[in-house]
Amino acid sequence: MYNLKEFKNIFDPLLNIFVDKKMGEFLKSSKDPFIKGLGSYSKNLITGGGKRIRPYLAYLAYKSFGGRQDDKAVNFFISLELFHNFLLIHDDVMDKSQTRHGQTTIHTHVLEKLNQNNRVGDLKHIADAQAILIGDLLFSWSMEFFTNDTSFDLENLTMAKKCFYKTVDEVILGQIIDVDLSTRENTNWDLIEEKTRLKTSRYSFVRPMQIGAILANKDYGNDDFFESLGTKLGVAFQIQDDLLDIIGNPKKIKKTPLIDISEHQQTFFTNYILNNGTKYQKEYFGQVFGKVVTKGKYDKIRKLFIESGSIAAGKKIIEENFKKAKKLIENSKLENEYKQKFFELIELIEKREN
Amino acid sequence: MYNLKEFKNIFDPLLNIFVDKKMGEFLKSSKDPFIKGLGSYSKNLITGGGKRIRPYLAYLAYKSFGGRQDDKAVNFFISLELFHNFLLIHDDVMDKSQTRHGQTTIHTHVLEKLNQNNRVGDLKHIADAQAILIGDLLFSWSMEFFTNDTSFDLENLTMAKKCFYKTVDEVILGQIIDVDLSTRENTNWDLIEEKTRLKTSRYSFVRPMQIGAILANKDYGNDDFFESLGTKLGVAFQIQDDLLDIIGNPKKIKKTPLIDISEHQQTFFTNYILNNGTKYQKEYFGQVFGKVVTKGKYDKIRKLFIESGSIAAGKKIIEENFKKAKKLIENSKLENEYKQKFFELIELIEKREN
Repeated sequence: MYNLKEFKNIFDPLLNIFVDKKMGEFLKSSKDPFIKGLGSYSKNLITGGGKRIRPYLAYLAYKSFGGRQDDKAVNFFISLELFHNFLLIHDDVMDKSQTRHGQTTIHTHVLEKLNQNNRVGDLKHIADAQAILIGDLLFSWSMEFFTNDTSFDLENLTMAKKCFYKTVDEVILGQIIDVDLSTRENTNWDLIEEKTRLKTSRYSFVRPMQIGAILANKDYGNDDFFESLGTKLGVAFQIQDDLLDIIGNPKKIKKTPLIDISEHQQTFFTNYILNNGTKYQKEYFGQVFGKVVTKGKYDKIRKLFIESGSIAAGKKIIEENFKKAKKLIENSKLENEYKQKFFELIELIEKREN
Repeated sequence: MYNLKEFKNIFDPLLNIFVDKKMGEFLKSSKDPFIKGLGSYSKNLITGGGKRIRPYLAYLAYKSFGGRQDDKAVNFFISLELFHNFLLIHDDVMDKSQTRHGQTTIHTHVLEKLNQNNRVGDLKHIADAQAILIGDLLFSWSMEFFTNDTSFDLENLTMAKKCFYKTVDEVILGQIIDVDLSTRENTNWDLIEEKTRLKTSRYSFVRPMQIGAILANKDYGNDDFFESLGTKLGVAFQIQDDLLDIIGNPKKIKKTPLIDISEHQQTFFTNYILNNGTKYQKEYFGQVFGKVVTKGKYDKIRKLFIESGSIAAGKKIIEENFKKAKKLIENSKLENEYKQKFFELIELIEKREN
């Protein structure tokens, strides 16, 4: 039974081999250096970063619920990581993010290349299109990987597949809500909660654990345990994410700081200010929300969040949810070895800086 | 054995039921009227138009090569139409098309709604994002439909699935090349040919026929017949498509006329002018290529294409390829009943006005 670090050490080379092979086949027929360059840049971005939390959670659930085929399980969860990369690439286009895992995002990279090559037209739009297409490709590979598997019992695999397709629908709806929220002048806590439930709790926690458990034992698919545990972890993780955007160490978050503010993203913290801020705080917030945040404004905006009490309130919810998640593990019937691995993982997430 | 019209009459209600059910499930958890509206508009667009050539070709090949489960085959090929709609939605965003099947494209519709609702932010970018997400959803449904089937022999289905995944990679690469071509100042006939091969011949003709034939008889997967026939039809169909963009009846093409010119799309016709046009023709073409074509310029641009000889040359290639395709059918070992249906379909395509 691997911990996250050990898992990543085995998982990453497998992912690398797979993406290398597929990208090679994909580009085989094309001789154009520009197209080839797009492929190899994307390959490096996919394999070069990421904590692999989702495939590890699936593996952890698989092992905890009686799965015994270590190697096959680790390999199979490449499908989840490919899917995750598809989402990240599309999200980054939609959020106009310039950095991901400390590297230039695909659409940003393509735009630079198009400009260097004196290409014509609406190059920003074209660069976005190319990144969307690379994302589509990964989506397809993840589905292919998932549905071509022959390592697991067909009945288990069919159930896991259903769970995976549910995940896809949920995370797409979550993203539709997320994108829509960014255009709404008024805060809407119901939609923020629905987005967190679909895009974070279900997608990043509940479903990976369910998929892993189903592969080990098909009777575990509808276990409430995953829904409860995943929801606590999801809420904590999402608010933590929103917190890192505001007060995370810019050198460590590997993303553009305060991009949520620039992109008019409604989060726990923005909702808090709009509901509980002083008149002055609300006014200043109204001036900066949805406009590009220049470096010079970082400190003032951070101060606004701290002084409004928003940061403290968010931290409290994060803490409570991690505590509840640990309690759920503690009270579960899992064997001690697996409880320990869950605790280790939760502690790693608690301490994360990106 | 149905002809295209009979096929469509059975196929469309099945597609409608499927999309209705899935969209209902998709939106079940969401109470927001804006999100619900996006879903129902998309549903109507998917089910409201399209000639169903790809699922019909798959059905025709299935029947011609000995398939006997009519109902199950018709139903199964919904997967291909869902995939096609995913592509159209993404293509329309990338090409900035405002109309599809005579209806407002999804991103254009969303943009109108966002404006009507006084939403804030980069609404064009947001509307594109929502359309991309609806496309992603259809991609997922098409994969789900394809991989959840239990009507066909597992071995045949597994082979058909491999063929489908190949198609996905090919069409994505074709679209990457297509998008890239639009940014190149210099014409590049090799890339235009590669795009046509991947995005039209393989995707719209070769692969649907192969998938149908494999489901009927797994030994037919690698038959050269499909590659030859599909390539002839694909080349004719693509040049026909490019021709309709230039001289098609605007009331019938159900798309924005001359959008290929506005979007700097390299086609047989643009390539012809750049290689064979007079100095004046090349100069005028250089002035309009890649700029929004206003209605007032329609006639002058059409005249340019006609006078350069580009239209006549294109028509000749279209004619030759349809002729060769018919010859291939004629000389094949197919039973007469199926030959007739292929001829009928090719004649319908020859006469198409959109």
